[in-house]
Amino acid sequence: MTAPAALVFDVFGTVVDWRSSVIAEGTARGARLGLTVDWAAFADDWRAGYPRAMDEVRRGVLPWTNIDGLHRRILDRLLAERGIVLDEAEAAEFNRVWHRLDPWPDSVDGLTRLKAKFPIATLSNGHVRLLVDMARHAGLPWDAIFSAELFGHYKPDPETYLGACRLLDLPPEQVLMVAAHPSDLRGARAAGLRTVYVPRPLERGPGGPMEPWTEGEFDVVATDFVDLARRLGA
Amino acid sequence: MTAPAALVFDVFGTVVDWRSSVIAEGTARGARLGLTVDWAAFADDWRAGYPRAMDEVRRGVLPWTNIDGLHRRILDRLLAERGIVLDEAEAAEFNRVWHRLDPWPDSVDGLTRLKAKFPIATLSNGHVRLLVDMARHAGLPWDAIFSAELFGHYKPDPETYLGACRLLDLPPEQVLMVAAHPSDLRGARAAGLRTVYVPRPLERGPGGPMEPWTEGEFDVVATDFVDLARRLGA
Repeated sequence: MTAPAALVFDVFGTVVDWRSSVIAEGTARGARLGLTVDWAAFADDWRAGYPRAMDEVRRGVLPWTNIDGLHRRILDRLLAERGIVLDEAEAAEFNRVWHRLDPWPDSVDGLTRLKAKFPIATLSNGHVRLLVDMARHAGLPWDAIFSAELFGHYKPDPETYLGACRLLDLPPEQVLMVAAHPSDLRGARAAGLRTVYVPRPLERGPGGPMEPWTEGEFDVVATDFVDLARRLGA
Repeated sequence: MTAPAALVFDVFGTVVDWRSSVIAEGTARGARLGLTVDWAAFADDWRAGYPRAMDEVRRGVLPWTNIDGLHRRILDRLLAERGIVLDEAEAAEFNRVWHRLDPWPDSVDGLTRLKAKFPIATLSNGHVRLLVDMARHAGLPWDAIFSAELFGHYKPDPETYLGACRLLDLPPEQVLMVAAHPSDLRGARAAGLRTVYVPRPLERGPGGPMEPWTEGEFDVVATDFVDLARRLGA
């Protein structure tokens, strides 16, 4: 493979461990409020509602709604199903847990090494403010924050991948899309980007499900971001 | 003044010293190519062409053209006027000097202190790729790169200031615009942002002209970014 000119990264699950972060905050919040909740199941259900809600935006069933809005719709449903009542300030603050996700152990080191050689940017369905807050929380050294919000389309719509390439002033074949989700990488590949698959086997918890993929489907498969940096000579 | 929730910065002249940077690169390039040129006058003329070219875009005389395109139009004219012939690769590379501008001595220290307390972002007429390259060159620790390119409007059009506030998910009155140019700050103020004037008396060289302004016109006047950090308790 010839050297890329820039790298763009999926964020939820690829750079940050949303599940452990949501469980930890739910557990602390529940203890403070005296709630008995299976926070692992709660985190999984919260995340599971998200692609469905985004698809409603992609199909035009919902108008453009940022991730805070989509997360809040799902949160309100999950709380109602469990008979939990939170006051507005508490619910709004819990909803913002998605701005405070912790990175995988290799993320900051790997990104820092990669940044020394290549421009690195997010390419996430999260909105810009969420991604800025998360970078500040987790110490993620992005050169730029690219988000579905800038393009008015959610991944895997091609407008997102091509929009990032346009802002980087690069043809798609010089841009590497890094993600833990084969479906995202297939969208990137269809738009002409090159692809790096970084499996995150713990994303949905130990033994949790992973999307199927085929050997040879992606340009690079790396075990984590430090491994990716090494493979790219960074 | 109540504390702001985020700061956005003009870049050319406010964060980076475009004039010294263009003179230094012109001098080195001229020596290599055996050219005799007054590089200070060349830098001033190059910069002077830029507001005029942007105004042509703002008035619809030119279609949307990024700063590389505007700088190149001006460069070609300046070279022709001086009877200088550069080959295409040389001209293209010289045009990209605007991606490699050096910061004022206080910029990196001041921004680093401010970033510890507030989200900080560019709000520049430079395009995203130029601002990313400049941040990597100069070590500018931006949380986000906001550019006229994202909004399809150049400052001082209100779409630029309001677009940055929308991406920060903040009302304009919670956002501080920092600039060395009163005209830019007046545009920000008209859009509802609060304003910080940081005079850069050397922007157009020792004794060079500065835009007039009136005492009390802006919310804060700071001598440099370190002074601004101190005033904001950062």
